[in-house]
Amino acid sequence: MIKTAIIEPDVSLKDKARNKMDMKSKPPGSLGRIEELAVQMCLIQNTLSPEATKKGHLVFAADHGVCVEGVSAFPAEVTSQMVLNFLSGGAAINVLCRVNRIELAIVDMGVNYDFENVAGLIRKSVRKGTRNFAIEAAMTEKEALQALQYGGDAYGELKKKMGSEMQVLGVGEMGIGNTTAAAAIISAVSGCSADKVTGRGTGVDDEGFKRKIQVIDTAVNLHKLDKKNGVDILCKVGGFEIAGMAGAALAAAADGTAVVLDGVISTAAGIIAWLINPAIRYYLISAHKSIEPGQMVALDCMGITPLLDLDMRLGEGTGVALAMNLIESACAIMCDMASFEEAGVTSRG
Amino acid sequence: MIKTAIIEPDVSLKDKARNKMDMKSKPPGSLGRIEELAVQMCLIQNTLSPEATKKGHLVFAADHGVCVEGVSAFPAEVTSQMVLNFLSGGAAINVLCRVNRIELAIVDMGVNYDFENVAGLIRKSVRKGTRNFAIEAAMTEKEALQALQYGGDAYGELKKKMGSEMQVLGVGEMGIGNTTAAAAIISAVSGCSADKVTGRGTGVDDEGFKRKIQVIDTAVNLHKLDKKNGVDILCKVGGFEIAGMAGAALAAAADGTAVVLDGVISTAAGIIAWLINPAIRYYLISAHKSIEPGQMVALDCMGITPLLDLDMRLGEGTGVALAMNLIESACAIMCDMASFEEAGVTSRG
Repeated sequence: MIKTAIIEPDVSLKDKARNKMDMKSKPPGSLGRIEELAVQMCLIQNTLSPEATKKGHLVFAADHGVCVEGVSAFPAEVTSQMVLNFLSGGAAINVLCRVNRIELAIVDMGVNYDFENVAGLIRKSVRKGTRNFAIEAAMTEKEALQALQYGGDAYGELKKKMGSEMQVLGVGEMGIGNTTAAAAIISAVSGCSADKVTGRGTGVDDEGFKRKIQVIDTAVNLHKLDKKNGVDILCKVGGFEIAGMAGAALAAAADGTAVVLDGVISTAAGIIAWLINPAIRYYLISAHKSIEPGQMVALDCMGITPLLDLDMRLGEGTGVALAMNLIESACAIMCDMASFEEAGVTSRG
Repeated sequence: MIKTAIIEPDVSLKDKARNKMDMKSKPPGSLGRIEELAVQMCLIQNTLSPEATKKGHLVFAADHGVCVEGVSAFPAEVTSQMVLNFLSGGAAINVLCRVNRIELAIVDMGVNYDFENVAGLIRKSVRKGTRNFAIEAAMTEKEALQALQYGGDAYGELKKKMGSEMQVLGVGEMGIGNTTAAAAIISAVSGCSADKVTGRGTGVDDEGFKRKIQVIDTAVNLHKLDKKNGVDILCKVGGFEIAGMAGAALAAAADGTAVVLDGVISTAAGIIAWLINPAIRYYLISAHKSIEPGQMVALDCMGITPLLDLDMRLGEGTGVALAMNLIESACAIMCDMASFEEAGVTSRG
């Protein structure tokens, strides 16, 4: 199965990192979350001089059988159209990765489209979309394990493209219907009913929204989900891009690379990865608070607080791209900022 | 006096900018605050293709007579020590400007130190610190107008250093005692009592905190401040670095440059600038929510919502440096992202 030998960080390093940060020429704690981030990066990289200049991002795409239930504001063909948009460089994630100096790659995990003559795509299609989980399991266990493995492989391919150096991996997605899958996963793991964890995704109308909640409640009951079994939940109500993100996150963490989650869908993938191997928790960073309610429920399960809160809900990893800079900045503070002593500044009155 | 002919943006551009953003290949509104920022930058630059790659930042430093009242956790000599730290590149703002590709300059507005043999400083010292506003006006009107002018001049010098191109100006500060001045300004303008707008600054202890609130309440009553008169408030309870930031902000806005405020002190400068010329409001962006309570009171007066919320309270413009990227990203989205039509993506189901 997927490589899940994730090293738990040396917690004795935490005090040393905290101490190094407190010696910096500023009032203790005055950089707030940036200080916490810097300490987390020390633990992840097992050093007091962490770096986050080598930033990679993977967008995983797949289609969803559950779309036939009318749960989305956009038709299913938008998934493949958006993949082509990513490949030609015109989507939001392309623009944001360029501005924020992040190496981007797109992965077909199971889009219902023939990309035969298209260049630049990482090809990991398991099947041309999941089955409709309102009536049957979204995927077989074999498919789920394959998709997790493919996600890890995609991480490896991006890292190779970056000259075998990656310090931070972002995961994002595209898949019409995937907020329905994400909400079902989060409902299963948290025990919250669908109305507590479901949002409007790309903007479904009132009637569609009611249908969406109904579909999720039905599916969670139908499949008798075991809240502790990540692979089982993935099979029953997941998606191939969600599996891809979970697999990439597990592989990255096993490789000592920090993993940045985006909105509700990548957070659902994060929670699947966390069920598979709880040690991944140390490596996870949440880029931003999405307006999808399920995301905070999932983050609360894992005890993670998001960095940004900009009313975003686009997906693709757009929040990740904006948060990467905070991580890079936090590492630079830990490495490059002068201590009170080095700067010749009086430390306290 | 200072150049205050700020052009009110052409509001008819707002609908066009909004419309251009809504045509982008993403669900409408799904980039949240980033979309609002992009529209604001269109109005500021009077274009549908705004840019924020030329980023400048000024740190204004000065000392405060009110320090003798024991309102700060750090001794007053830390102001000059930190200026030397800025000039040798070791402070937080230096590190963050490097990571975020921001041109940085340091301005002496009135530090109680002789910087004679020090290179790299913009010299605009009005006086070696303000008078103690607990018992007399912090500065004369002549000094206040001089300091405002000097702030504008410093903007001009930084812009020249950048090849006469600046699209965004950040303002930050260093000055032991300046959260006391900022809270007094905000108390005067908002009408809120000192306990509602005063924080612990660099970390004053319980006794010092009580003293600080007392000093501010006393000063606001003593000087009979007129809440609509920015220059008068500045004279009575302000600071030279606060005047410098206000002057730079006014000059930048008059020049069509967006201005990014940092925490409570630069926001107090922003409110002084806003009282002098309310049209500056269109040009102001708040980088982050500080943990100093006065900042939100001041922002509410102007109707501005901060971008980041990372529990920061360092000053220098450290929040500005982290937010600059969001502004650059927002502009890039407006300019470079493909529309549904350009991308060949179906816009709605």
